[in-house]
Amino acid sequence: MSGNTFGRIFRVTTWGESHGPAVGAVIDGCPPRLALSPADIDRELARRRPGVQAHATSRREADKVEILSGVFEGLTTGTPISLLIYNKDVRSQDYEAFKNLYRPGHGDITYQAKYGIRDYKGGGRASARETAARVAAGAVAQKILDRESIQVLAYTLELGGVKAQRLVEAAIWDNPYFCADPDAVEAMSRRIAEVKSQGDSLGGVVEVRVKNCPAGLGEPVFDKLDAALAHAVMSVGAVKGVEIGAGFAAARMLGSENNDTILPSGFASNNAGGILAGISNGDDIIIRAAVKPIPSIAREQQTVDTQGRPRPLSIKGRHDISAIPRIVPVLAAMVRLTLADFLLRQRAIA
Amino acid sequence: MSGNTFGRIFRVTTWGESHGPAVGAVIDGCPPRLALSPADIDRELARRRPGVQAHATSRREADKVEILSGVFEGLTTGTPISLLIYNKDVRSQDYEAFKNLYRPGHGDITYQAKYGIRDYKGGGRASARETAARVAAGAVAQKILDRESIQVLAYTLELGGVKAQRLVEAAIWDNPYFCADPDAVEAMSRRIAEVKSQGDSLGGVVEVRVKNCPAGLGEPVFDKLDAALAHAVMSVGAVKGVEIGAGFAAARMLGSENNDTILPSGFASNNAGGILAGISNGDDIIIRAAVKPIPSIAREQQTVDTQGRPRPLSIKGRHDISAIPRIVPVLAAMVRLTLADFLLRQRAIA
Amino acid sequence: MSGNTFGRIFRVTTWGESHGPAVGAVIDGCPPRLALSPADIDRELARRRPGVQAHATSRREADKVEILSGVFEGLTTGTPISLLIYNKDVRSQDYEAFKNLYRPGHGDITYQAKYGIRDYKGGGRASARETAARVAAGAVAQKILDRESIQVLAYTLELGGVKAQRLVEAAIWDNPYFCADPDAVEAMSRRIAEVKSQGDSLGGVVEVRVKNCPAGLGEPVFDKLDAALAHAVMSVGAVKGVEIGAGFAAARMLGSENNDTILPSGFASNNAGGILAGISNGDDIIIRAAVKPIPSIAREQQTVDTQGRPRPLSIKGRHDISAIPRIVPVLAAMVRLTLADFLLRQRAIA
Amino acid sequence: MSGNTFGRIFRVTTWGESHGPAVGAVIDGCPPRLALSPADIDRELARRRPGVQAHATSRREADKVEILSGVFEGLTTGTPISLLIYNKDVRSQDYEAFKNLYRPGHGDITYQAKYGIRDYKGGGRASARETAARVAAGAVAQKILDRESIQVLAYTLELGGVKAQRLVEAAIWDNPYFCADPDAVEAMSRRIAEVKSQGDSLGGVVEVRVKNCPAGLGEPVFDKLDAALAHAVMSVGAVKGVEIGAGFAAARMLGSENNDTILPSGFASNNAGGILAGISNGDDIIIRAAVKPIPSIAREQQTVDTQGRPRPLSIKGRHDISAIPRIVPVLAAMVRLTLADFLLRQRAIA
Repeated sequence: MSGNTFGRIFRVTTWGESHGPAVGAVIDGCPPRLALSPADIDRELARRRPGVQAHATSRREADKVEILSGVFEGLTTGTPISLLIYNKDVRSQDYEAFKNLYRPGHGDITYQAKYGIRDYKGGGRASARETAARVAAGAVAQKILDRESIQVLAYTLELGGVKAQRLVEAAIWDNPYFCADPDAVEAMSRRIAEVKSQGDSLGGVVEVRVKNCPAGLGEPVFDKLDAALAHAVMSVGAVKGVEIGAGFAAARMLGSENNDTILPSGFASNNAGGILAGISNGDDIIIRAAVKPIPSIAREQQTVDTQGRPRPLSIKGRHDISAIPRIVPVLAAMVRLTLADFLLRQRAIA
Repeated sequence: MSGNTFGRIFRVTTWGESHGPAVGAVIDGCPPRLALSPADIDRELARRRPGVQAHATSRREADKVEILSGVFEGLTTGTPISLLIYNKDVRSQDYEAFKNLYRPGHGDITYQAKYGIRDYKGGGRASARETAARVAAGAVAQKILDRESIQVLAYTLELGGVKAQRLVEAAIWDNPYFCADPDAVEAMSRRIAEVKSQGDSLGGVVEVRVKNCPAGLGEPVFDKLDAALAHAVMSVGAVKGVEIGAGFAAARMLGSENNDTILPSGFASNNAGGILAGISNGDDIIIRAAVKPIPSIAREQQTVDTQGRPRPLSIKGRHDISAIPRIVPVLAAMVRLTLADFLLRQRAIA
Repeated sequence: MSGNTFGRIFRVTTWGESHGPAVGAVIDGCPPRLALSPADIDRELARRRPGVQAHATSRREADKVEILSGVFEGLTTGTPISLLIYNKDVRSQDYEAFKNLYRPGHGDITYQAKYGIRDYKGGGRASARETAARVAAGAVAQKILDRESIQVLAYTLELGGVKAQRLVEAAIWDNPYFCADPDAVEAMSRRIAEVKSQGDSLGGVVEVRVKNCPAGLGEPVFDKLDAALAHAVMSVGAVKGVEIGAGFAAARMLGSENNDTILPSGFASNNAGGILAGISNGDDIIIRAAVKPIPSIAREQQTVDTQGRPRPLSIKGRHDISAIPRIVPVLAAMVRLTLADFLLRQRAIA
Repeated sequence: MSGNTFGRIFRVTTWGESHGPAVGAVIDGCPPRLALSPADIDRELARRRPGVQAHATSRREADKVEILSGVFEGLTTGTPISLLIYNKDVRSQDYEAFKNLYRPGHGDITYQAKYGIRDYKGGGRASARETAARVAAGAVAQKILDRESIQVLAYTLELGGVKAQRLVEAAIWDNPYFCADPDAVEAMSRRIAEVKSQGDSLGGVVEVRVKNCPAGLGEPVFDKLDAALAHAVMSVGAVKGVEIGAGFAAARMLGSENNDTILPSGFASNNAGGILAGISNGDDIIIRAAVKPIPSIAREQQTVDTQGRPRPLSIKGRHDISAIPRIVPVLAAMVRLTLADFLLRQRAIA
């Protein structure tokens, strides 16, 4: 109801603020007897930590999860799995300056409107810090996907206007942008450096591809698989657009171009992005997310304070230049959470 | 769970197949003492009926709703509102030909994979016929929006590659495509005629704009307002992409370009599309949907039958050339359902 | 949210008022490929119709259900099943007298307090008429139980103080009170006649017994099977108490008396009522419900009108003397709905 | 879905096993701007700690809660409140003996049947330890009730057959059984001592009374307030029966006796227990719970091991003689959670 729970059967509830003592997640509905260790989760957390990117200005230690419940002698028990990740390296004093003003592009002004109160330190609940709990839960979800050999691959297609021209899976984790095309990496680095020197920030496009997803997942009519994936992906801060398969390009195609011919051997193309009428068709599921540039920039902007008075603002400090690449494992996690839930939903009625 | 219910407090459950006796919706959670009559609903239903478009090949009478419960002496009572719309002019024999094959771009193959059974007549539950129930429920949702003077405007931005260049609200209902730009209508008509003569179909882009939405709606972190709207819009068949505000264009902007400056008088721009950190900011909410071309085309396609054998297929009959304009009131309805629910959700905790 | 939906996976939403055109239910989450016909449902509806009891003053035709969706060629399709039962023999004029006063023991005063409006005709939504939809949905739920050979038996244990001394299954449907003990029937009839002549009404106790329920159903910790059954049973108007197994008698036992010894052959006793720690243990599930006397009585009572002024009231008309036996199939239906849901919930995680 | 979440708007998810590192709760949907400190919660936790009762054999330090999120500068923020309580004084070796057998009256056998795995230490998730998280969450719920001056009073009516004859509110917290009648305390103590010497255990009856509850709470038809309360109360381990108002006694009354006469000044009696047609009527809400004797007893019992072989069992150790009084604050907490949720549900539609 209040938006901090995701999923119907495999249900994840996250909690925690950027500058509170910790963030965490409780997973209810995880099947019993799955092998699960903190290392399974820490591996994914390592991919979203600040500092993996060349353009990040500071380095922190990787997050370590504590599993407080739901696992007994290395196996899940079917009871809720409580995951806790302590916040380290929190410098609240950095944020005193923002206590009385609204940063453009951030949720300061809307949280205040909604709740009549806000934790102004580091963005509070609106901080990207919250996504650590999603990534941790996504690693648990992957355990369910593993039973079906489902693989979720996420990578950068575009960063600051520089586009990947091809998909080389092996290259994804070998560059600081999780870019699918090794030949685009250098241009991305240049673009990042250029914009950083201007005190500005960049957006981009991330693609998530699900391989080996069985046909039959998705719940017509309101919980179509593509609808649920759009929900999942758009629930990540900074995402402003979502496409499935051909996406917006389909709007400009003829029916004869867009339809995926069905051959005895399978679909001849994949404009559908692996989903027909809201149900997976067995082909790769393809989702793309438009990521806006990070709103915290050093360049001076105009805004107002909490009294409505004009205030110039220049945000200094340890901010990334782009939500990419850190958003990449987060988007993969959201897709994992969605698929794990729909796999279990399908089992209920099959 | 099984996907036929939308919303948390204002909850709509739809039911019905294309060629069954009727379609309908049950609305639970509608506040009491709202004036509601069948005419309020029939007006919206009229906008999605086949035949309002010049390029439609057949004409049927408009749908008429029956309100079976939840209204007493013209006012809602707080109990469930049951809406029923009979299916008329159903010609099941048209579909016997499709009993044993899978139409490309349709859900035939995925419904079979999911359920092991399918109502092959007219697409069954996957038919656009189902959206009549959504539109009916959306008209009830609008009653809640009316209390806050919230207006939901939906219109065609693009059809078959022909783009509207401006937004003229008064013109929307005056042309057969619900196009926002009266100057684009003639080119759209030509494009429709051309493609129709080729036995093919077209897609397009629809925009929904919410005016006068109060700040504070949306539930961080998973039920951000934009995430819920993406879910709502993507749950309509034929939609393959969703954007909020600047959408995919934001991915190519600098932070300094994309951030909406906050002035004492309000936001200087609206790249955010009225939503910051998942919560409405009081500005217009702007959503765009990519609509794929209708998959039923007269041009011959290749497919397989239920035994996996290759089959050529040419779909004749009373099919539209584009889901536009009939999808326009459906998308408006989904946005209404979403906002009505979030208004009530906000009341619960405010 | 607003209380008209029951279940999580097998979800039933009921709608309809006593004196509206119809009542009905939409079932979402019913597995596909179950054989289902109106006759399956009408058989159960026949058991709750007024007039099956000797002491009922009027006779109406049995209800007939219409299945409007979700069934194709005699099999469920996995899509929502819409059930509709028209209200017949509705005499609204009977209720004009109650328009401006609050009947003691009825929901008139509380519906007004809650909604600020009420459909005063025949109790509106609070009428026992609503339970027809539950019974109809329960007949569908039984189809799922049938796959596991689960049997739900409901019968009267006590009526107006007359107690059944034994359980003779074969006798249940052979007497007008659905009483488990054929030897108690005559005394029940006398008690009914006596109280009827006094213009008063009677309550009683109904037991529901589930046979052949597999071990493992129930969801700790809040959705324990007994908690869900208590919810289900107490949601039926007139029920004021619920017991599982030994129930209140357990409060007066020693641990050594109440514990069910576990033998290699199974449990030696069943004080637990088939449920341990909220999960079924494979033994019979036993639930008892306390049913209050019907509040509509001919004997004069004191009440107030909607202006708060004192008013004497004597309710004439076609009222039953007791909610028993008509409540018996309703309670069976609620148990069926609960078990069907928990069976599917268990499949999701097993 | 998997049963570890309670409530719809004010939603509590608990986690944790008896012998894991901690237990906890995440509360989503708590309104913002409520004053909340750990002390508010610790006060309630103190009431359920082992050792407050004279007959308890061991003493531990009181639980202390940590609030990890959702509170900023002493006020709730509207974001999830994460509560954590570390498990102290855990002696797992006590339970090695039970690793391979099923204790009668416990969930060992059913957890194994459900999940195919069980945390055998201290009952794992089925332990009463889990209720600490409920009590903590209940203390937060009370903050919402405080805004409406709603008071929830829970007390022992009966223990081991010794019955309270009157309700003296001031006496409740002054005796080790939270008994409402100070004159019954000595007899209860004698009964406890007697049964303890026999190596056996006792049950009893607890009443919860809600004062100053506004009329209008409860959601017909399935989420009637009494149905939700029955669910809440029956979800506490050891509860085998629930009554509202006159409860089972109503089954033996005439309608003219059971109906609560409505006077201009209010109801003349309260057989309804403050609820009519599932909606609160403004009178005191009265709920009674039957509590079974604790199944862990020193007296020898017969059971089987996990291989199905017969095994005698005598449970030594630090077990209470009765779930009373520790269950008393737990039942109060469940009622608080229910009412807080229904208050918010009512706000949504009012």
